[in-house]
Amino acid sequence: MIKQNRADRVLDALKDMGLSQMLIVDPMSIYYLTGVWVAPFERFYGLCLRADGRHAMFLNRLFHVPGDVGVEKVWYSDTDPVTDLIAEHLDRDAVLGVDKDLRASFLLPLMEKKAAAGFVNASIAVDRTRGVKDEEEQELMRTASRINDQAMARFRELIHEGVTEKEAADQMLKIYLELGADGFSFEPLVAFGANAADPHHAPDNTKLEPGDCVLFDVGCIKDGYCSDMTRTFYYKMVSEEYRKIYETVRRANEAAIARIRPGVPLRELDAAARDLIAGEGYGEYFTHRLGHFIGLAEHEYGDVSSASAWEAQPGMIFSIEPGIYLAGDTGVRVEDLVLVTADGCEVLNHYPKKLEVIG
Amino acid sequence: MIKQNRADRVLDALKDMGLSQMLIVDPMSIYYLTGVWVAPFERFYGLCLRADGRHAMFLNRLFHVPGDVGVEKVWYSDTDPVTDLIAEHLDRDAVLGVDKDLRASFLLPLMEKKAAAGFVNASIAVDRTRGVKDEEEQELMRTASRINDQAMARFRELIHEGVTEKEAADQMLKIYLELGADGFSFEPLVAFGANAADPHHAPDNTKLEPGDCVLFDVGCIKDGYCSDMTRTFYYKMVSEEYRKIYETVRRANEAAIARIRPGVPLRELDAAARDLIAGEGYGEYFTHRLGHFIGLAEHEYGDVSSASAWEAQPGMIFSIEPGIYLAGDTGVRVEDLVLVTADGCEVLNHYPKKLEVIG
Repeated sequence: MIKQNRADRVLDALKDMGLSQMLIVDPMSIYYLTGVWVAPFERFYGLCLRADGRHAMFLNRLFHVPGDVGVEKVWYSDTDPVTDLIAEHLDRDAVLGVDKDLRASFLLPLMEKKAAAGFVNASIAVDRTRGVKDEEEQELMRTASRINDQAMARFRELIHEGVTEKEAADQMLKIYLELGADGFSFEPLVAFGANAADPHHAPDNTKLEPGDCVLFDVGCIKDGYCSDMTRTFYYKMVSEEYRKIYETVRRANEAAIARIRPGVPLRELDAAARDLIAGEGYGEYFTHRLGHFIGLAEHEYGDVSSASAWEAQPGMIFSIEPGIYLAGDTGVRVEDLVLVTADGCEVLNHYPKKLEVIG
Repeated sequence: MIKQNRADRVLDALKDMGLSQMLIVDPMSIYYLTGVWVAPFERFYGLCLRADGRHAMFLNRLFHVPGDVGVEKVWYSDTDPVTDLIAEHLDRDAVLGVDKDLRASFLLPLMEKKAAAGFVNASIAVDRTRGVKDEEEQELMRTASRINDQAMARFRELIHEGVTEKEAADQMLKIYLELGADGFSFEPLVAFGANAADPHHAPDNTKLEPGDCVLFDVGCIKDGYCSDMTRTFYYKMVSEEYRKIYETVRRANEAAIARIRPGVPLRELDAAARDLIAGEGYGEYFTHRLGHFIGLAEHEYGDVSSASAWEAQPGMIFSIEPGIYLAGDTGVRVEDLVLVTADGCEVLNHYPKKLEVIG
């Protein structure tokens, strides 16, 4: 059933952009607004929100969406020309806001049909709304991260001599399920030693050896909401250089978190972490943004980077994940999720960040 | 490294459409053409193919793509205006073919910048090429389906009184990995009894009871290529009506397969299965197309439906998956993958289709 509060926030944002209608296609945004979940694969699935209240949901007959959802349902079959049906439900004389994810295969035909007076990317109206979690969502995010904290403690126990990244990763789903999660929020990243220098390294058959770092970037999904945390451990021993790198990253994580309060530009958080890392001489090895928004999706719109134009606002939840990556050598990342509060922030992860040498 | 044979087939198809340049963004299509695999999440990742050979690949600095890939690499950072970089590499005076998956967030700015003389959906050039598998791909598809056959025999053993759909589904990944697969090609669908009436039912806590049908729609991925098969079993007993429904679906599967040879319109395969089901009085309960193409992705472009304009061609691989769905009661689907050969087809699945009553 349509969640009127959330839809109203989106419509207000559209109004500020001078728009009276929008076509939303991100299944998570539609779930956020209606509670209806569909995995459409390559088929069209959309929600049209209109300022005049004549909303409509476009559904393939194969989708299972029973009952009243509070908006008109427009059903189509695989053989129907779906963009014709969409065009019929739009105000041709008004500009249409479109979801950033609307694919060319649907956007180009709508343009050819002149289904609206113009087409603009209006995702920000939904994305900005989704970026500020309401209380129900905040509680779900706390729960997902609580499970992730418990899981990290169990994952730490998977570390022993000779284990491969893939063997460790392959045991994680079962642990999450035992702890009550519904599944992964993303495939776990497990990286040993030099593999950790690639921030997106996928687990392979690399065997753990003494002196290696052990990077776990992991998250689960619970009741639709995602967690995401990274910890970096050391096996058997840690060199002085690695200790310095680790402590630099940990302090960068904490320096950024200490600055969070409503009104702080997110780019200043990125700068706080980046400056600290640069001050230790590792500036060029922190190769990505500080963080990303998260909620129903593991990566939501909005980031914590030098390019961010947003200010922190109560209810925002994003990651703080500085890293240092030395190609062919080692990598470290320390990541927490944070919730901006009225006077600071609540860190959603509680697994310790103190350097741990295992075994 | 760019696979020149495949790129040439795409460029030939573009030429037939009057196009001299295309922007490809589907990571699987880029993998198909270059052997480079990147999971870009929300970041831009693209390959521009040009008839004049000035191809370019657009890469975020966070992506890990070392070495020579045979095309120019254009690196960008999270803070760079990526559509400006793309525009610089296009021929502004020629129409640009775009991938059907190109998102509005990138297409609309390219249009505003007039980065090309026009924009058309040219995905068919890549998709049609991908739809016809070369020998290397055919062998990989056989391997993935061979593992899927072996897995189905193991999954059958998961069926016992009181097991829930979710308990059965949760054991499947481990079995696939033991058999040498790299993972799921899609989350397994496990449906008991009336749940099978929803073709996309996700496994839940429903417990198996005598007389229930047991539908497994499952697939694995191996070396990048996907398998996908459905079998429907019965637990302890099967009513005469259910037996009739099952046999109708099985015969529909076999009737469609028997008609496959080069030159046959794919809509005739759909009709062969649909007519047989309608002849038994279940026409309205076969609610989806007969099949879909498959390869690097579990659902690739191209379908076997009444709307298909394609003819079977040697090298095409698609599913044949008729079903009958009685809401609140039962559902049956029998699915195989088939490879069109010079004089007929090779069925890639060998798990038997004879009705099996288990337990």
